Amino acid sequence: MDAVAYFPDESDVRLIETEKPSPADGEVLVRTLEVGIDGSDRRIVAGDIGGQPPNGENHLVLGHEAVGVVCDPNGSAFEAGDVVTPLVRRSPDHETRFDTNGELDMAPPGTFHERGITGMHGYMAEYFTSDPAHLVRIPDAIASYGFLVEPASLIEKSLEQAFAARSAFDWRPESAFVLGNGNLGLLATVRLETGEEFARTYCLGRRDRPDPTIDVIEGVGSTYVDSRELPVAAFADEHDPVDYVFETTGYPKHAVDAVFALAPNGVATVQGIPDESMTFDVDCGAFHSELVVTNKALLGVVNSRKRHFEAAVEWLETAPKPLLDELVTGRYGLDEIDAAFEDSPDTLKSVLSFDG
Amino acid sequence: MDAVAYFPDESDVRLIETEKPSPADGEVLVRTLEVGIDGSDRRIVAGDIGGQPPNGENHLVLGHEAVGVVCDPNGSAFEAGDVVTPLVRRSPDHETRFDTNGELDMAPPGTFHERGITGMHGYMAEYFTSDPAHLVRIPDAIASYGFLVEPASLIEKSLEQAFAARSAFDWRPESAFVLGNGNLGLLATVRLETGEEFARTYCLGRRDRPDPTIDVIEGVGSTYVDSRELPVAAFADEHDPVDYVFETTGYPKHAVDAVFALAPNGVATVQGIPDESMTFDVDCGAFHSELVVTNKALLGVVNSRKRHFEAAVEWLETAPKPLLDELVTGRYGLDEIDAAFEDSPDTLKSVLSFDG
Repeated sequence: MDAVAYFPDESDVRLIETEKPSPADGEVLVRTLEVGIDGSDRRIVAGDIGGQPPNGENHLVLGHEAVGVVCDPNGSAFEAGDVVTPLVRRSPDHETRFDTNGELDMAPPGTFHERGITGMHGYMAEYFTSDPAHLVRIPDAIASYGFLVEPASLIEKSLEQAFAARSAFDWRPESAFVLGNGNLGLLATVRLETGEEFARTYCLGRRDRPDPTIDVIEGVGSTYVDSRELPVAAFADEHDPVDYVFETTGYPKHAVDAVFALAPNGVATVQGIPDESMTFDVDCGAFHSELVVTNKALLGVVNSRKRHFEAAVEWLETAPKPLLDELVTGRYGLDEIDAAFEDSPDTLKSVLSFDG
Repeated sequence: MDAVAYFPDESDVRLIETEKPSPADGEVLVRTLEVGIDGSDRRIVAGDIGGQPPNGENHLVLGHEAVGVVCDPNGSAFEAGDVVTPLVRRSPDHETRFDTNGELDMAPPGTFHERGITGMHGYMAEYFTSDPAHLVRIPDAIASYGFLVEPASLIEKSLEQAFAARSAFDWRPESAFVLGNGNLGLLATVRLETGEEFARTYCLGRRDRPDPTIDVIEGVGSTYVDSRELPVAAFADEHDPVDYVFETTGYPKHAVDAVFALAPNGVATVQGIPDESMTFDVDCGAFHSELVVTNKALLGVVNSRKRHFEAAVEWLETAPKPLLDELVTGRYGLDEIDAAFEDSPDTLKSVLSFDG
């Protein structure tokens, strides 16, 4: 079968011919429909993060935002024809409590692989196998948005963590600020603007009009904030401070600056992973006071688990499909891999189709 | 009656003769037994924070860690003779939802006074009045530790916030690290070491042995960490990283450094309020990554509400009294005000007695 593999020693991504996997005992065989490409994929290919092949191999099959169809349920509760999307993390030894609990998203680094990211092959292949515990069924009606479940699940996890962190008092959030207009940032803007939690949202970018990301932001009813004119740390000088910040930029200073964009009792979740160490002059006195005096919270969030996938599916069912369609700027066949991985100002979400 | 007042224009604290208060409709009259003195009191007196007298007055009666006896229940559910401790914040207009909800600890700055700290007279007087909603009954058996309820309630609020922030997964904390060996830090060390939440604790100081704070830390079974030898940011180089950090130093860099002392999924609460703005070189890349990749949380916590007072009372009932006694290094009469406010390496907790 065909698969898309990254060869770290050659810094190359290419289509390979590999053996169709046979499900082990209790594993489900899935035929891949589509796989989304995100910033992590591009950073792997650029040699910046992950990309570690499985033990003894020279390549890693990419892809962690997948949707497929069960072709061999292999005794599981799934049926042939079920549309499913797979979780990303796997525990190589199935021995940590995080694996047993279904909370691999909270497992400490070094105790798991991330399929398609590091240590274990991903889903950019015509078929893949998976423990059924790591598959989530999705309704046929949203099968063509199934590759959005994984990124949307991160937003659901962040919201869950944010609300949990504010659950010991009567929090009444009204506004949210998404930092970043990459594909996760735009998806978050659509999620937060169309969801029930917030009455208004903002989204940060650094682009001139006309621009397709600004079109999405304003199309959904959110407010575009140009970080070149209004940096995050100065946001509250011009707008009311917000109750929630969802960071996706990976710009290191945003973890600190987000706190200054928050209203009293606000919470910021940071999800972006900076490339490297980067030192800034920080007024730690102001940062520390700001946190304490107004009961603010700053949370790091990575990966997601089954219930977050399920929440994402629930949202995608109700989400306005034309808005989702606007996010997907390119579907590519297996003969267009280079084009699929390319990035440009007009690229929002690229998708690789295996169902050609 | 006698009261201890701070005169900001004269930078002076002295005993004054003032009128015994008459409870307004529905207010309770309380006869003061003892009032604790903490870092905030000393910072007010030094002119560093708060100290604002009520409208039109030239002085502020100090004191926010009080215990007293109800002498006029005035139609409330209290009885004469009940031992009570009062909350600190009051809403001047009783109009915000935070006041209605009993969550003034979450109210935004500018919408409340803090009795004995800013805008409204405190409890260092032979008598005070209070809305009964802001009084918490305490058992007679711990009346002589009643001035510890207010600071202990801050620890309870921080624990509640920390556990809430970790409630969306199966968190299993084992260790806690208290930053600071002032009177709040020592009380927290005793609370966290003798409570059920953590199996082991550490407490940070910068003192040479022999030292009474190290005696308390080690006496309760905690481990003393000398910040001159092992700064917070390097803590995890020598010890296992901790699940919880409780910061009391107000040293601005500790809000950032605490994150590096945390184990994956750990949470730090910061309570110290830095004196002023203070800029450091911060590796924001490392800080941001550390938060995200290991799902860490950083929470600011200020003040506390009724249920935190009640939780503090519950803990004080079971707390080993000899340990609490060790924390109280001086009880002073009204003729010894200067001595009561003095600080020294041997001063842990000073208490002003009105029951002489």
